[in-house]
Amino acid sequence: MSRGSGCCRASRRSLGAGCSVPDAVRAPLPRGRFITLEGGEGAGKTTQVRRLAAALTEAGLPVLRTREPGGAPGAERIRSLLLSGGNWDPVAEAMLHFAARREHLARTIQPALAAGITVISDRFADSTLAYQGAGQGLPRPVWEQLSAVALEGFAPDLTLILDLPPETGMARAAGRGEPDRYERLGLGFHQRVREAFLAIAAAEPARCHVVNAARGADAVFADLRAIVFARPAP
Amino acid sequence: MSRGSGCCRASRRSLGAGCSVPDAVRAPLPRGRFITLEGGEGAGKTTQVRRLAAALTEAGLPVLRTREPGGAPGAERIRSLLLSGGNWDPVAEAMLHFAARREHLARTIQPALAAGITVISDRFADSTLAYQGAGQGLPRPVWEQLSAVALEGFAPDLTLILDLPPETGMARAAGRGEPDRYERLGLGFHQRVREAFLAIAAAEPARCHVVNAARGADAVFADLRAIVFARPAP
Repeated sequence: MSRGSGCCRASRRSLGAGCSVPDAVRAPLPRGRFITLEGGEGAGKTTQVRRLAAALTEAGLPVLRTREPGGAPGAERIRSLLLSGGNWDPVAEAMLHFAARREHLARTIQPALAAGITVISDRFADSTLAYQGAGQGLPRPVWEQLSAVALEGFAPDLTLILDLPPETGMARAAGRGEPDRYERLGLGFHQRVREAFLAIAAAEPARCHVVNAARGADAVFADLRAIVFARPAP
Repeated sequence: MSRGSGCCRASRRSLGAGCSVPDAVRAPLPRGRFITLEGGEGAGKTTQVRRLAAALTEAGLPVLRTREPGGAPGAERIRSLLLSGGNWDPVAEAMLHFAARREHLARTIQPALAAGITVISDRFADSTLAYQGAGQGLPRPVWEQLSAVALEGFAPDLTLILDLPPETGMARAAGRGEPDRYERLGLGFHQRVREAFLAIAAAEPARCHVVNAARGADAVFADLRAIVFARPAP
């Protein structure tokens, strides 16, 4: 398959604006792949990230599992701010997500890719577009400007979007215990989030694959595994 | 004096992108003035903000004193992240400052201005340009993009830059107890910060006044008071 080559080139840029970025970030030809899993609540992302990482490790590849918001020490501190609630202004909230993402990218993702490690992240920038954009009304140009500043053209090599009706996802999430602040938002919110993820996939078919996540975990994993193993390393 | 009229118009815009901004922010003609004090360590900003607020209150004006980073509940939580250290990527650090500034603007500054209150802030966006830009190498275009997203053209009506040699300021700051993370940075850093504030003042003479802060507090205050009372309300 070659249809991911365009975004692979974009994702190979190193971060220029951050002048104290570790030297490893500047390596010109990192060999690892950056794979993201996206989707609404209860889609099974965390389980599938774990299973995919295990499958790639069994295949002999070095793999790093990570998540957003978070994935680096400073980013995890920002995560605590975001998930502990508070009535954030939408622009401020998006800036916090991208500040965390910048730390995640500079400290964790790019050094790992440069060392030839495949990185699998539970959520990335698409989640901010879906949740803060479609879900909470953040204008898309604001997302685009923040993305340009924080990521400088970096993008995942492959994005797997776990899609399911919000009713199903919310019912699954409810079984996990106390809802977080996103889980407490209404069904209309989660429907907009779902539609936003599907729109992202439609706009970027070279990067994104939509997988029906309303099925059992084994069936979903079989699809994800087939997609990941069919794609060559960059 | 009329030379501040250009920036006064800019500062009267309300925030459009933040869809949950309080209604008060949308009032078309706020009557308060937004005055910022800027400058390096040990310049006496906190003392002078307090004295200026007292003088304006005595003159019969409602006055709100505030500070950055901080000035709103969410912004104060971000302040704790920033001042407690950590090795932030420069772009991430600037994003955290602007996220806090957006909260400060939406929750505190604009509602107060709309209610006819004069707002005096100890630091604002110029500090990010001076400290993260000149001091830590953040590219100016990144500052400009983040400023455009967070402030949407909003700017202070009047900025008072307290200028003094960094050697003098650092010696004063050292007398206050434990140094914070900025105070621990070297003299070269603080020299670049000083030069950045002077460059901002030179580029925006309608908004900025430079005051020699190497003198005693009474002499500095007399100058600041004269400048503030000479400027009409917008």
